Amino acid sequence: MEVMIENSLDDDIVSNLGLSKEDIKNYQFRICYEDVDAAGIVYHARYFGIADRARTESIRRLGGTTSELYKKDGLVLVVREAEIHYRKPLYIDELVIVKTNIITTLGASCWLSQVFFRDEEIVTELKLQLVCLKKGSYQPVPFPKKWKKIMEAMM
Amino acid sequence: MEVMIENSLDDDIVSNLGLSKEDIKNYQFRICYEDVDAAGIVYHARYFGIADRARTESIRRLGGTTSELYKKDGLVLVVREAEIHYRKPLYIDELVIVKTNIITTLGASCWLSQVFFRDEEIVTELKLQLVCLKKGSYQPVPFPKKWKKIMEAMM
Amino acid sequence: MEVMIENSLDDDIVSNLGLSKEDIKNYQFRICYEDVDAAGIVYHARYFGIADRARTESIRRLGGTTSELYKKDGLVLVVREAEIHYRKPLYIDELVIVKTNIITTLGASCWLSQVFFRDEEIVTELKLQLVCLKKGSYQPVPFPKKWKKIMEAMM
Amino acid sequence: MEVMIENSLDDDIVSNLGLSKEDIKNYQFRICYEDVDAAGIVYHARYFGIADRARTESIRRLGGTTSELYKKDGLVLVVREAEIHYRKPLYIDELVIVKTNIITTLGASCWLSQVFFRDEEIVTELKLQLVCLKKGSYQPVPFPKKWKKIMEAMM
Repeated sequence: MEVMIENSLDDDIVSNLGLSKEDIKNYQFRICYEDVDAAGIVYHARYFGIADRARTESIRRLGGTTSELYKKDGLVLVVREAEIHYRKPLYIDELVIVKTNIITTLGASCWLSQVFFRDEEIVTELKLQLVCLKKGSYQPVPFPKKWKKIMEAMM
Repeated sequence: MEVMIENSLDDDIVSNLGLSKEDIKNYQFRICYEDVDAAGIVYHARYFGIADRARTESIRRLGGTTSELYKKDGLVLVVREAEIHYRKPLYIDELVIVKTNIITTLGASCWLSQVFFRDEEIVTELKLQLVCLKKGSYQPVPFPKKWKKIMEAMM
Repeated sequence: MEVMIENSLDDDIVSNLGLSKEDIKNYQFRICYEDVDAAGIVYHARYFGIADRARTESIRRLGGTTSELYKKDGLVLVVREAEIHYRKPLYIDELVIVKTNIITTLGASCWLSQVFFRDEEIVTELKLQLVCLKKGSYQPVPFPKKWKKIMEAMM
Repeated sequence: MEVMIENSLDDDIVSNLGLSKEDIKNYQFRICYEDVDAAGIVYHARYFGIADRARTESIRRLGGTTSELYKKDGLVLVVREAEIHYRKPLYIDELVIVKTNIITTLGASCWLSQVFFRDEEIVTELKLQLVCLKKGSYQPVPFPKKWKKIMEAMM
């Protein structure tokens, strides 16, 4: 299947997977005990971990994984900047949908928008810049071609 | 001692504690295994937890605690907005200093700047807005008088 | 649906849900960046958070939620004892299955076994005791009748 | 200072540091927002992270660091087994002391006892086995001579 995805990259990567663009961008997450704090709501730092899980999963659906990036290409992804707006609290047992969009890509970095929804309601909005770095030296390096195509598919 | 601090609030809260303003604002934190990720550097979400520890401790030095705010005043502090710039990676075993400044206060909210230093070098810069909410209803409520004075002392 | 589950509790709770016992007990979890440490493997403390998510989800499939337990019955579940054996490391991007079994139940407590699998291979084994406590006083209280039936269905 | 500590290893490592054995073994930790869950008490998994910080710091006082072990010796420390007994809840703003003792050492592993105290009261008891592994292969390797001496000093 990995091979099929590789080939499909020259075509429309999304339609070949049998998933709609919305399916790929949306990630479901259930709020559990470990996510909330003493105020009974999701701790503000947890949104970053959940957003990381969400974008990792959306990218995985298009054939990209962190471990392949690391082992094959010797690269790591690191957050350089982030802005977050908490609009509503999230409570235990609630189901949240994180919708990940790529806004722009430059050679070695990209900006993402990640919006947390409870049903139709926007709970939290996150924007962040990811940078692709060489492991060890932590110097910026352009995304591999495969990842560029994945990111375009998520715009 | 709690009483002494209460009284001193009408005077110069900082000088009465025998700590310099810098002592109060600076919080030391040692980077451990649980703070770093597979890339060998502090995971981006962890900075928010560390920053929370830092501002909580600075405020405690001036006589304010989360538990008193909760039990006595029925209030919780919640992050509403945040911006973070990661400049340099932080590695395991390193010692970081977080310097917390209050930038502005409004009735029920305030903006803080929290800068992470490794020796003299700026590692990460965080700005965030805290809001004071009524527990249960999560409605904004002005900070108690004592906290206003504490925040002024941290400007 | 909540009502249907309530009724089915006097019968075979599991078969009425259209899920096999195995489906109910097994929880899938993808290892992400935030789960691993500098050694490149899942940090030992993370297994406890993942196990919590797993048992919460299995219990939810049978109609029990933490928030209902808290709001309706005024109860919280707390871990009193745990034993864990780490057999194999888990790596980033791997998919783990957590299988939750209830071993024994007493009035206000129960013992669970939670085994982490990578395919057929046992990665980690966890045994723990949960206690049902009154919120506020933290005194042990027998599980509600509904939860007893749920736990019997997970044996 | 690193050099002085190295030399002192052939003598009584503890007395040369000007710290009592108790000073070395005891680690203070303040409970913050990020440590507690919706039940208002420290989340059970957090004890493992706090215990890791505690033993790391005690070992550092004797001249051993995780980063040196990793870079100089190519070794990582991994938890293989653990047992934990939660006796009392810990609340936000409380100060806990973790006392770390090495119980036994074998070539490539050791057992530790870590007890959490609030004042004189035992809150939680943890016993765990650490194994020294070669990075990459994750095969057990005897602790370096320096670490053996450090561990003996913590018995």
